[in-house]
Amino acid sequence: MQKLKETINKIEKLDFSLMEETQKKLDNLTKPKGSLGRLEEIAKQVVGITKKRNPLFKNKVIFVMAADHGVTEEGVSAYPKEVTSQMVYNFMKGKAAINVLAKHVGARVLVVDMGVTRRLQITNYKLQNFRDRKINYGTKNIVRGPAMTKEEAVRAIEAGIEVFEEELSRGIDIVATGDMGIGNTTSSSAIASCLAGRSIKDLTGRGTGVSDEVFLRKVEIIEKAIRINQPNPSDPVDVLSKVGGFEIGGLVGIILASASKRVPVVIDGFISGAAALIAYSLKKEVKDFLIAGHCSAEKGHKLILEYLGLSPLLNLDMRLGEGTGAALGISIVEASIKLLTQMATFEEAGVSTKIGE
Amino acid sequence: MQKLKETINKIEKLDFSLMEETQKKLDNLTKPKGSLGRLEEIAKQVVGITKKRNPLFKNKVIFVMAADHGVTEEGVSAYPKEVTSQMVYNFMKGKAAINVLAKHVGARVLVVDMGVTRRLQITNYKLQNFRDRKINYGTKNIVRGPAMTKEEAVRAIEAGIEVFEEELSRGIDIVATGDMGIGNTTSSSAIASCLAGRSIKDLTGRGTGVSDEVFLRKVEIIEKAIRINQPNPSDPVDVLSKVGGFEIGGLVGIILASASKRVPVVIDGFISGAAALIAYSLKKEVKDFLIAGHCSAEKGHKLILEYLGLSPLLNLDMRLGEGTGAALGISIVEASIKLLTQMATFEEAGVSTKIGE
Repeated sequence: MQKLKETINKIEKLDFSLMEETQKKLDNLTKPKGSLGRLEEIAKQVVGITKKRNPLFKNKVIFVMAADHGVTEEGVSAYPKEVTSQMVYNFMKGKAAINVLAKHVGARVLVVDMGVTRRLQITNYKLQNFRDRKINYGTKNIVRGPAMTKEEAVRAIEAGIEVFEEELSRGIDIVATGDMGIGNTTSSSAIASCLAGRSIKDLTGRGTGVSDEVFLRKVEIIEKAIRINQPNPSDPVDVLSKVGGFEIGGLVGIILASASKRVPVVIDGFISGAAALIAYSLKKEVKDFLIAGHCSAEKGHKLILEYLGLSPLLNLDMRLGEGTGAALGISIVEASIKLLTQMATFEEAGVSTKIGE
Repeated sequence: MQKLKETINKIEKLDFSLMEETQKKLDNLTKPKGSLGRLEEIAKQVVGITKKRNPLFKNKVIFVMAADHGVTEEGVSAYPKEVTSQMVYNFMKGKAAINVLAKHVGARVLVVDMGVTRRLQITNYKLQNFRDRKINYGTKNIVRGPAMTKEEAVRAIEAGIEVFEEELSRGIDIVATGDMGIGNTTSSSAIASCLAGRSIKDLTGRGTGVSDEVFLRKVEIIEKAIRINQPNPSDPVDVLSKVGGFEIGGLVGIILASASKRVPVVIDGFISGAAALIAYSLKKEVKDFLIAGHCSAEKGHKLILEYLGLSPLLNLDMRLGEGTGAALGISIVEASIKLLTQMATFEEAGVSTKIGE
């Protein structure tokens, strides 16, 4: 609990005076004022986060946290739970969607086993791209009791913080969050309903693609899990332990640690959104360090973003997770910073300014 | 006229059977079906356009067509018309927004003087990045008569076709359209009102940022230009000659030539949208070769995209032109193709498929 508290305490406000200075710089670049739209806002935010006038995105890191969910035994997912571990191997082979997109945007992928059911054999792979932080062999079934103990919940978050801090020695200029965990949209809906105060029906979608029948059962199961566990909405760690997941806890840690070290965090879809909700509930200032990479097609994600007051960079109807939407978001954020730092000013370029100025 | 007719006649349909085959391939990649959303549609469209199972984006070319508009003497723009030529020099120095974004996405910029007022001195610059296709020294003021002769309108379109065809020898795998021309939102509103059948008020925005007063004058001036010139909505070349611009004609040529050579075209904002409207009105099949890079903050752009049935990849409130929104769009399109061609299938990765399949 000590590490978690320390990390939360280190999260400060953005550097607003540097952001104001950046606005002036943006207004003097060879373009009509404000004509780069959201890109100008994002550039300013990144400067405010990093306290750097000319941020450079040399090290872009996508953390993909994986874990299993006991609730899958209720048949809430379209895929068998083995897929979680199988996909971890796929990540390590570099052949999953997130690997392709990470390469496209020049980011590295770090896969973290936060609690997959299988004992992974990863000795043949590049170990620098993998961390074993298994808290347990999957969560317990949340319709029968809490997903994990409160102690495990804290350990999951602190493991995320530690993974970030270790990785920081290799350099991190921007972070994207990603997840893998069959059953984790069920868990995320439960978390969001506790912390964002919306109905489970509003927050529950089709996940990886379940039928009408399974969808209705999924809603019932989430309602039952909340009834049985009675998570305390004013205690985010309690919510995580009662209905969360180990990978979600790990992502909470990544987000908190990034904010504490003033590194911008591009969050992915619904599962990253649930983690962001927990982090935000622990410390409101976290929000200013977040950039919403995209809005997922998973129904509840839009509501989470609205609750957090975040506007997504992309709307491509993606619903894959893994960090795929956040990875594409990294590229947009990087573009905004390159515009800020590489464009000519009116004076440098000998371009006339607005009439009457 | 011969070249224009030949080019239009060469535009065919997409390869629908190859697109169907591509859908099957997409469904077999290690991700839930359809979970990559718009990226899957775009990948299919690119395969349908190029007739290639594994398209490769080695040569990405952004055509930035520049020209001046006589209507600027009515005071419809926030910037003096000299800015058009000054920005051409800025493009050649590589210091404008489009240069920064082109570099970011690995594209080259080709600047084309389609009709700027100034006699440009570009001998000190890399000439391979510049083409002199000046049709005339700016258009005439459209509130007094046609912008250009019909013969000039055809020459502008054919110059665009020729620029594309010459550049094709250096390789072109994907195209983005861009524009520079103080006063060209005025011209584009007039074109769109003729061809998309919407009111001028609905289609007119603030351009580079005019005041309320100038905005109202701008609407009046466009109404007057239409009244005086009586462009024929069923003759797109007549519309271009009466109220268009040389850079818009050039972009029509780029779009038609790309479609005729089966190269995907990412269109930029309002001005590119007006050019796309003309190209579409000349040949309906053109639409299938277009990808809307973004939706501009310039009011009428959304209406043009709706009319064309195109859904934008990005919504970042940009309103700069130059091809900036299209450049970012290129990166998303490229990502979609990399996903299609580099991801593992379920079988290759040893990942279980959906329950019941």
